[in-house]
Amino acid sequence: MDSFESTSTRSEQLARDLILHPESYRVLTGDRPTGRLHLGHYFGSIAERVRLANLGIEVFLVLADYQVITDRESAQGVRENVHNAVLDYLAAGIDPERSTIFTHSAVPALNQLLLPFLSLVSEAELHRNPTVKAELAASGRTLSGLLLTYPVHQAADILFCQGNVVPVGKDNLPHVEITRSIARRFNERYGEVFRIPEALLTDTPELPGLDGRKMSKSYGNGIALSMTADQTTAVIRKAQTDGLRLISYDPQRRPGVSALLDTAAVCLGLSPQAVAEQLGEAGAGALKNVTSEAVNDYFAPFRARRAELAKQAGLVTEVLRTGNTRANQQAEETLHRVRSAMGMVY
Amino acid sequence: MDSFESTSTRSEQLARDLILHPESYRVLTGDRPTGRLHLGHYFGSIAERVRLANLGIEVFLVLADYQVITDRESAQGVRENVHNAVLDYLAAGIDPERSTIFTHSAVPALNQLLLPFLSLVSEAELHRNPTVKAELAASGRTLSGLLLTYPVHQAADILFCQGNVVPVGKDNLPHVEITRSIARRFNERYGEVFRIPEALLTDTPELPGLDGRKMSKSYGNGIALSMTADQTTAVIRKAQTDGLRLISYDPQRRPGVSALLDTAAVCLGLSPQAVAEQLGEAGAGALKNVTSEAVNDYFAPFRARRAELAKQAGLVTEVLRTGNTRANQQAEETLHRVRSAMGMVY
Repeated sequence: MDSFESTSTRSEQLARDLILHPESYRVLTGDRPTGRLHLGHYFGSIAERVRLANLGIEVFLVLADYQVITDRESAQGVRENVHNAVLDYLAAGIDPERSTIFTHSAVPALNQLLLPFLSLVSEAELHRNPTVKAELAASGRTLSGLLLTYPVHQAADILFCQGNVVPVGKDNLPHVEITRSIARRFNERYGEVFRIPEALLTDTPELPGLDGRKMSKSYGNGIALSMTADQTTAVIRKAQTDGLRLISYDPQRRPGVSALLDTAAVCLGLSPQAVAEQLGEAGAGALKNVTSEAVNDYFAPFRARRAELAKQAGLVTEVLRTGNTRANQQAEETLHRVRSAMGMVY
Repeated sequence: MDSFESTSTRSEQLARDLILHPESYRVLTGDRPTGRLHLGHYFGSIAERVRLANLGIEVFLVLADYQVITDRESAQGVRENVHNAVLDYLAAGIDPERSTIFTHSAVPALNQLLLPFLSLVSEAELHRNPTVKAELAASGRTLSGLLLTYPVHQAADILFCQGNVVPVGKDNLPHVEITRSIARRFNERYGEVFRIPEALLTDTPELPGLDGRKMSKSYGNGIALSMTADQTTAVIRKAQTDGLRLISYDPQRRPGVSALLDTAAVCLGLSPQAVAEQLGEAGAGALKNVTSEAVNDYFAPFRARRAELAKQAGLVTEVLRTGNTRANQQAEETLHRVRSAMGMVY
């Protein structure tokens, strides 16, 4: 396990080199289609993906549909969530001709990599993964075989396409670490097949939900990217604040007010403190108005594009078909190399 | 978990029904290609498969190449072992036109089933599996993710082809049990896709290795099906016995002598006690001669066929290509039904 400092230093070098040599890199990133994508996803990861793609870096975007059932007994809504996510990506500026948008359930050769990869990790390593522990605690359920092994499956998502850059927050570094271990161990044991991926640390502070807790589909405290301006205004109006006229940024003691300030600030390109100062003693109603306007102004072009895209019948299906076809070609090529290296070609 | 008695009763009913309605059944069985197949495999399972196939039951025979790396750091020799196993199957009387011989690493859609199946079992269930525990102890290594999850992968081997009969010894019943649980849970959660497989208990006593221990490729105490008559005679001549002239069947106190008696007996269609009586005070040399002759006589036709088959260039490759193609068609069909039931078709 590398230290956070060395990972952080490597990430900074990587960020610089991505600009200089975009052709040397391939990014793997994605989302779990458990619900609608929201502003937290947009500012936390989607905007960064668009930036990377615009640098000329090839981006593989996985809609990790099997991760929906790591801690759920049903995959209900997954199709709708996937379709909405594709519209969100396109509206945000992902070009499906240059980036590959795919669902991992449609790529059998990718999933097969789970088998050799599982042989390269010990059960103890699987148990040590802090993200698995956190998600297990959050789910309040017994640990399923899929939740236990999903970091290895995520390694398959990254390595099948020879992804060498994985944009992550600090919390998800263990996933990149286990992927690096798997790639190294495979190469040592069977011969050089995989590039060793690097984490690209995102330093954007996480946008909280409207109640100040983590923005989460399950808490219902987020503003979905698929909402209209009116829906956004309604959701913000219902957000819980407090009776103080003076608006101040204090996430600990004033979570609702501070979350609104964070939301307005990220859309206005200001600090939350600066927004608070501008509002002074204007009260929560004014804060809500400012926040709604900031969000609605910021996302107006996005929403216009999204509405246009949503009107094109068959577009999402076609984007996924193209992406899945490309992902399958890539996965079959990698699997062939893996099977050859292991002597499993008959 | 069903009781052994009820499983045993069901198995007896099943054995009778297989004869009456062979068209209602599909058998999944197979081997781990970790070395050459030996007499233990032949009398323990291969002969039974030939019997089932000859009843007109469709048999899927998996060469479980990913199981080679559950407790090994290398897949060395797997290609050669697979090729030899195919020759053994054909020489034993498996007709590759009617039975499907395949390697699971060549069937991505089968392997993908591991993902939804892992979501249906808890980590605690994986840990409780007695076969995993026994293999872990025997390997003397740390538990790999693949060893922990291999019963679920085996469920995929059985269920991808809608196998509903699995011939097993008592020790492997837990594998059938977990497969039944997975099939039931999938059907309950997502709708009826899988048939619930049944165990067909084999009552053949296990043929011991020449040293009286379990016959195992790793102990080097077996007679491989690919050996010539001379090699067989040489291996039997080197077997450790004792100095007593009187030959008697006593596996506890005379493991070497008893193992030779078991070997001769199964080839002669006698009991080991009867073979011992015939030998009387003839001593270990005579026992070895009788045993060599019994094995070599019994396997003479098998060996002649095997030698013929081995001469046909490209035969094994062609059998595997046909089998893997058929297995892929079947797996893709099942995976499509699984993905549709889960709503993962985009």
